Amino acid sequence: MNFVYEFSQGSKEQTALLGGKGANLAEMTALGLPVPNGFTLTTEACIDYLAGKDSLQEELKNDIQNHIKALEKKTNKGFGSTSQPLLVSVRSGSKFSMPGMMDTILNLGLNDETVKALADKTANGRFAYDCYRRLLQMFGDVVCGIDKSRFEDQLTFYKNKRNYQEDTEMKEEDWHYLVDVYKGIYQEVLHRPFPQNPVEQLFQAVEAVFRSWNNKRAVTYRRLHQIPDDLGTAVNIQEMVFGNAGFESGTGVAFTRNPSTGEKGIFGEFLLNAQGEDVVAGIRTPQPIAGLKQSMPEVYQEFERISSSLEAHYKDMQDIEFTIEDQRLYILQTRNGKRTAKASFKICIDMVAEGILSRKEALQRITPSMVTQLLHPVFDPAELAAAVSIAKGLPASPGAASGAIYFTAESAKAATLRGEKVILVRQETSPEDIEGMVVSEGIVTSRGGMTSHAAVVARGMGVCCVAGCETLQVDEFLEQIICGEHVFKAGDILSVDGTTGQLYRGTISKREGNEQELLQEVLGWGKEINELKVFANAETPEDIKTALNLGADGIGLARTEHMFFGEERISEMRKMILAKDKRGLKEPLEKLKTYQKQDFKEIFQLMEGRPCTVRLLDPPLHEFLPRTGKEIEELAAATGRMPAQIRKRMDELEEQNPMLGHRGCRLAVSLPEIYEMQVKAIVETALAVNREQDFTTIPEIMIPLISTKEEMALLREHLDQVIQEVLNSEALEYKIGTMIETPRACLIADGIAEYADFFSFGTNDLTQLTFGFSRDDSGKFLGEYIEQDLLKADPFQHLDEEGVGQLIEMAVANIHKTSKGSKIGVCGEVGGDPQSIRFLRKLPIDYVSCSPYRIPAAILTIAQESKFE
Amino acid sequence: MNFVYEFSQGSKEQTALLGGKGANLAEMTALGLPVPNGFTLTTEACIDYLAGKDSLQEELKNDIQNHIKALEKKTNKGFGSTSQPLLVSVRSGSKFSMPGMMDTILNLGLNDETVKALADKTANGRFAYDCYRRLLQMFGDVVCGIDKSRFEDQLTFYKNKRNYQEDTEMKEEDWHYLVDVYKGIYQEVLHRPFPQNPVEQLFQAVEAVFRSWNNKRAVTYRRLHQIPDDLGTAVNIQEMVFGNAGFESGTGVAFTRNPSTGEKGIFGEFLLNAQGEDVVAGIRTPQPIAGLKQSMPEVYQEFERISSSLEAHYKDMQDIEFTIEDQRLYILQTRNGKRTAKASFKICIDMVAEGILSRKEALQRITPSMVTQLLHPVFDPAELAAAVSIAKGLPASPGAASGAIYFTAESAKAATLRGEKVILVRQETSPEDIEGMVVSEGIVTSRGGMTSHAAVVARGMGVCCVAGCETLQVDEFLEQIICGEHVFKAGDILSVDGTTGQLYRGTISKREGNEQELLQEVLGWGKEINELKVFANAETPEDIKTALNLGADGIGLARTEHMFFGEERISEMRKMILAKDKRGLKEPLEKLKTYQKQDFKEIFQLMEGRPCTVRLLDPPLHEFLPRTGKEIEELAAATGRMPAQIRKRMDELEEQNPMLGHRGCRLAVSLPEIYEMQVKAIVETALAVNREQDFTTIPEIMIPLISTKEEMALLREHLDQVIQEVLNSEALEYKIGTMIETPRACLIADGIAEYADFFSFGTNDLTQLTFGFSRDDSGKFLGEYIEQDLLKADPFQHLDEEGVGQLIEMAVANIHKTSKGSKIGVCGEVGGDPQSIRFLRKLPIDYVSCSPYRIPAAILTIAQESKFE
Repeated sequence: MNFVYEFSQGSKEQTALLGGKGANLAEMTALGLPVPNGFTLTTEACIDYLAGKDSLQEELKNDIQNHIKALEKKTNKGFGSTSQPLLVSVRSGSKFSMPGMMDTILNLGLNDETVKALADKTANGRFAYDCYRRLLQMFGDVVCGIDKSRFEDQLTFYKNKRNYQEDTEMKEEDWHYLVDVYKGIYQEVLHRPFPQNPVEQLFQAVEAVFRSWNNKRAVTYRRLHQIPDDLGTAVNIQEMVFGNAGFESGTGVAFTRNPSTGEKGIFGEFLLNAQGEDVVAGIRTPQPIAGLKQSMPEVYQEFERISSSLEAHYKDMQDIEFTIEDQRLYILQTRNGKRTAKASFKICIDMVAEGILSRKEALQRITPSMVTQLLHPVFDPAELAAAVSIAKGLPASPGAASGAIYFTAESAKAATLRGEKVILVRQETSPEDIEGMVVSEGIVTSRGGMTSHAAVVARGMGVCCVAGCETLQVDEFLEQIICGEHVFKAGDILSVDGTTGQLYRGTISKREGNEQELLQEVLGWGKEINELKVFANAETPEDIKTALNLGADGIGLARTEHMFFGEERISEMRKMILAKDKRGLKEPLEKLKTYQKQDFKEIFQLMEGRPCTVRLLDPPLHEFLPRTGKEIEELAAATGRMPAQIRKRMDELEEQNPMLGHRGCRLAVSLPEIYEMQVKAIVETALAVNREQDFTTIPEIMIPLISTKEEMALLREHLDQVIQEVLNSEALEYKIGTMIETPRACLIADGIAEYADFFSFGTNDLTQLTFGFSRDDSGKFLGEYIEQDLLKADPFQHLDEEGVGQLIEMAVANIHKTSKGSKIGVCGEVGGDPQSIRFLRKLPIDYVSCSPYRIPAAILTIAQESKFE
Repeated sequence: MNFVYEFSQGSKEQTALLGGKGANLAEMTALGLPVPNGFTLTTEACIDYLAGKDSLQEELKNDIQNHIKALEKKTNKGFGSTSQPLLVSVRSGSKFSMPGMMDTILNLGLNDETVKALADKTANGRFAYDCYRRLLQMFGDVVCGIDKSRFEDQLTFYKNKRNYQEDTEMKEEDWHYLVDVYKGIYQEVLHRPFPQNPVEQLFQAVEAVFRSWNNKRAVTYRRLHQIPDDLGTAVNIQEMVFGNAGFESGTGVAFTRNPSTGEKGIFGEFLLNAQGEDVVAGIRTPQPIAGLKQSMPEVYQEFERISSSLEAHYKDMQDIEFTIEDQRLYILQTRNGKRTAKASFKICIDMVAEGILSRKEALQRITPSMVTQLLHPVFDPAELAAAVSIAKGLPASPGAASGAIYFTAESAKAATLRGEKVILVRQETSPEDIEGMVVSEGIVTSRGGMTSHAAVVARGMGVCCVAGCETLQVDEFLEQIICGEHVFKAGDILSVDGTTGQLYRGTISKREGNEQELLQEVLGWGKEINELKVFANAETPEDIKTALNLGADGIGLARTEHMFFGEERISEMRKMILAKDKRGLKEPLEKLKTYQKQDFKEIFQLMEGRPCTVRLLDPPLHEFLPRTGKEIEELAAATGRMPAQIRKRMDELEEQNPMLGHRGCRLAVSLPEIYEMQVKAIVETALAVNREQDFTTIPEIMIPLISTKEEMALLREHLDQVIQEVLNSEALEYKIGTMIETPRACLIADGIAEYADFFSFGTNDLTQLTFGFSRDDSGKFLGEYIEQDLLKADPFQHLDEEGVGQLIEMAVANIHKTSKGSKIGVCGEVGGDPQSIRFLRKLPIDYVSCSPYRIPAAILTIAQESKFE
């Protein structure tokens, strides 16, 4: 097996073998760029070493020495030569960039003799001894494990003695002295001298890099980022060039485009007479790259030429490290540059315009999290670094917000009217908190998971939310949070990062993320090649407008129950629930119908004939009943009943497991009047809107929680009949379909398909029932499940392909047995999750539906997937 | 198509064509028994008539007339003859006995002329005119729709006028007069006379029988008993013989064995000089059949001979109607006799001994409900008929009981100590009520379904229970029930019929049903041919003994949580739940372990090495916490905590949907110490018992609520390790398996099977999750679902084959993918349900497990099914 590759032998594809750095050095060498000569020890060499443990194999040592000889020939220098000494850098480089591993040793090859030769050759003794002391320090630290501070303290002590402020004040003889001191440290700590033999230095450095693959920080990093442990790291050994060889020399880092904004043009910094680490360490302040244009115009021109050819070659913005030695430009490293989400979009759009990328290629460069970042504000990174984090919960809805905390919807509303920015804090939210949630900048709950009420509603509204923050003790009565030793009272200021789940004390500045134009352009490409439609879960005008702006093709789920929580409406709803007999239902239902028609009119007008699925009432009736004694008394007064009667009705309706109770279509079986009212409202409104407008609304009416064919048959027949009565002789196209939310519905979907025009998988409920996990309660143990590898991920966020996915697949096949053409969609939380979409689109289904702010990521995912067909 | 069959043409198999009665008359004719001559109009003739509606086809009329001619020839009589008049009876008879249809017209053929001939021929004018007035009355009522009371009022009026007490006092001339009055009624109501033409009488009577197939009572009856509407009824036309022709004549009904006790020997009654209806109507008191032996010994001897040949022929106890006309015996009808459960068993056992039936045939004669009747007491039927029913709930656990009502476990216990028989009444029961349930004769709840806590526990204990009696308002605070206008207070007496679901006021006498010996004998045959084992869901010594007595092959489900509710134990349980850290768990767990070892010792000793599956803790921890303020304070005192701290912990543990919450194996993931303790207790006890006894306990440890392969792998590995530590070097065979209770577990059972030795389907939870129906809450709508035909039956009682059954089938196939030999069972409620067992055994599975009192029916069902292979 060949463990050593010359730079001239490899290519950029060989990252697994040569590491990212080595592969790019090889690629640039092949491109004919001015890369200092060198070679790479492969990751396989590392794996081989780690398997054998204690020392380098003789064979590898021989190989290295042979390649060193070849390098001597190419450079006309000698390793250990006292006339033309060859110095090298030794750098690790694995397939994935991995902080925590040993990184770099410079100037390797220097010893008491070669340092003199370097001094002579460069006529710069100060430079040569500076290089030597740097080697001693780096080698001591990373190869021999001598605490870095041992060296630094001596330098500081010496400078103090000499009264020097800066390293630049150190003279040649000062470095002479310090080199001696540093060598003394080796003797003192290791009881052996610094190795004078360059080959010995090299072998020790290589071993140190190999070993660093398994150091603690590296292992932890890999675990966190799910990088396999058996990849190994490569080692790059490269001739040193010196940016610190004088004022005709320098070093710098540049991006081919602005990494913050994406603007085209070289963007970077450099330092004259400096080595790479000086730029990074911040000891001296680098100049903008434009300065190089003035001081060394020809070098700059060459750099510009190389930059643009590298960008064209890699088809991506590059992050390039370079060194100039005596007016000669060397490229030390190139890689795809890190950038902000905004820059990503801008660069993709520009590169498409420049013909560097096709649209399909550009789409692959965008990740769903970039879309999220583009849509939601983020905290200023500098302020964030200084902020005091007080707790961490689940990152339930992305975005960032600071504001005064309040504990009830009422006080949140009142504070907003006073002009305060508000963070609503609750143990958990319920539909009755909606008005408080609407006015808040951010929402925090101490209970509930990623699909709790707070999380779902917040994502729907695009409000940031941290849910299930269990270390907070939220006392809604005393209106305070206890959090360890801190107590926060109503009105205190907190900052909420819904993207990370962190809570901070006080205010943190935000950077707005709303870059609609860039997003629209890229999503526009996506939609051109989408085979799967993306609909929105939305019912309020605000949400619908947002959804359409963000590219929704229609509404996949308009939840009518959300419409019943307004103050006037809930009172009619309660009257209906308290009705003594069928006659008593009539008046409240008539009033509710009037409200519903207003709602549907707004929806249909905004949708302008686009697909629109309205789900009939789903939750159990007790959700609409009052909670507090005061509310009960108010309701009693309003309805002329005794509070005791209301309490009795509440007792009757109470359920042990409401999720499995009397709700959805089951309500319609015992109380058909509610669905009748809703369906009449839908049809009457659709007729009226169609009469006035030049588009055609085709309402799709969705019945929730079907689990038997017979339910679907009964309700379909009944609703068809109600609709025919409303239509009288007028014509209206409409569809009646169902949600598939119970395992049983999946198992017998062929039967249901005899009566349903379309299907929408409600993956939240389906996941609950398939696992037997309650969304509200599983927060208590899901975390532990994921930590202990019992689950790959929260199945409410990422579809459980093995279980729930298997059921959905079965159901789709069952539906197709009865009817090939039925429209099938998914409207649970996972409908907006890229990973889940990748699975779902293969079943196949016709659409996904998700909360408005998740639509762009969904469109993007589908577009990216389409490419690979 | 031949619409008319002579009795001599048919056979007993042709019940679909000839009806049950016609087929039996044909069969008896073929056997050469003295059956009066006649013929049958087929059910097809009825269907044809009903399709054509308005009148009889000419062809059928001709057929009937031809058969009448043949009958005239055979009997040497003439239809309408004024010398030897032929009289016939007309009776309906469909495939299934069906009350509500027109039944019988006697004496058809009489008119103003033939009545005189009959009087002359019999020299009994009183008899002839009595027959005629009976015809007029029956024909008027059932053929012409004249209200029966019109006729009866006239008779009463006449008797009053004459000062007669009884019909027997009526003389010939009295009947003459009344015949004229009756004929006048025809004229007055129908404006036409009674048809004098016998053929016309016959045609009208036949049409009336045909039409009666569709009368309201018949349709309702068919709906209730799920008899198809398109079967039609046959009509039997048969020569009249006269039991009322004098004191050499008579009529009677007899069983070939005693229908109450099953004792062999003719058991029946007869009346001299009477027609059939007189026996039934109870106007005169019939004599025991023994009287016939004395009055007409030869006739009796012949009857005895015929009885035993009929029984041998039909291989079943017969219910025979006979008539004697002038010392000549006629058999009018035979059918399998209705009998009590006890008689069924006795007859089966005797007939097997007599060689009439094989054991396998005999087993088919026993139904599961007979088994239930045999085991549980029933109310005295006569008292029951007179009792005041106050409400009806679900028949949750069979049996009958009367007692004083009490509303708490405590007061029930106290009353028992005072010597009262107690009925415990609760809104719903919880594990904390166990001690009250144990001492009660019966249990009544106002909420909950057939698988609610009360129902499951009551069935397990064999205590009768009516659950979900929603018309009762149970006020546990005021200790009273409001039920319509009635109020019942603690101490008031109620009677509970758990077999029908009825509640009655006051005491009703019971007949004990515990006929163990008969049951054991029959079940003994069953077990010989059983391929499927029957295990018990049982954990208390009482239940285990009952289960073994009733034929259990082992324990399929011993629920360890039931063991934690005793007073001392629950206090340790609570200490454990309140522990601040892992260290605090130790002491209470040690104590609990001591208790558990006592429990397991009792179980293992009783089981003597039979299979025994112990399920580890399943319910969520909050079920063990106190409920009342008083209990909280007691717990606070006992643990040295503040009540507020306890309340806080209660809040933390509270769940929205406990059924889908932190329970089962999920608890073990976060708190492995509990399962560790339980497994140690099981293994240590098994070792100790095996050391002392000469049988070998092989404990089977069952982990509940698995939904991922990873859970099973983790827990199996952990428990194996714990067990190995306990075993040290001792040997013990044990198995670790799981319940399959979530749809997901079914879908991925092949993965679980890699780590489980056995599987038990928990169909209660599986049904809940497959439908999304909570057992506790679905009572509110399941009734409506069954009424509206949305469900065939309560899926918690009878396995939902289409949905849940499909999942189980899938899971069994999945398990077999990984491991062919794993033991698979079912331990939910449906494990004891015959209908469900018939489905489950085909999958195939290895055992069913059910509450002790359901075991016999399960054994029986399996034995019955085995036969047909």
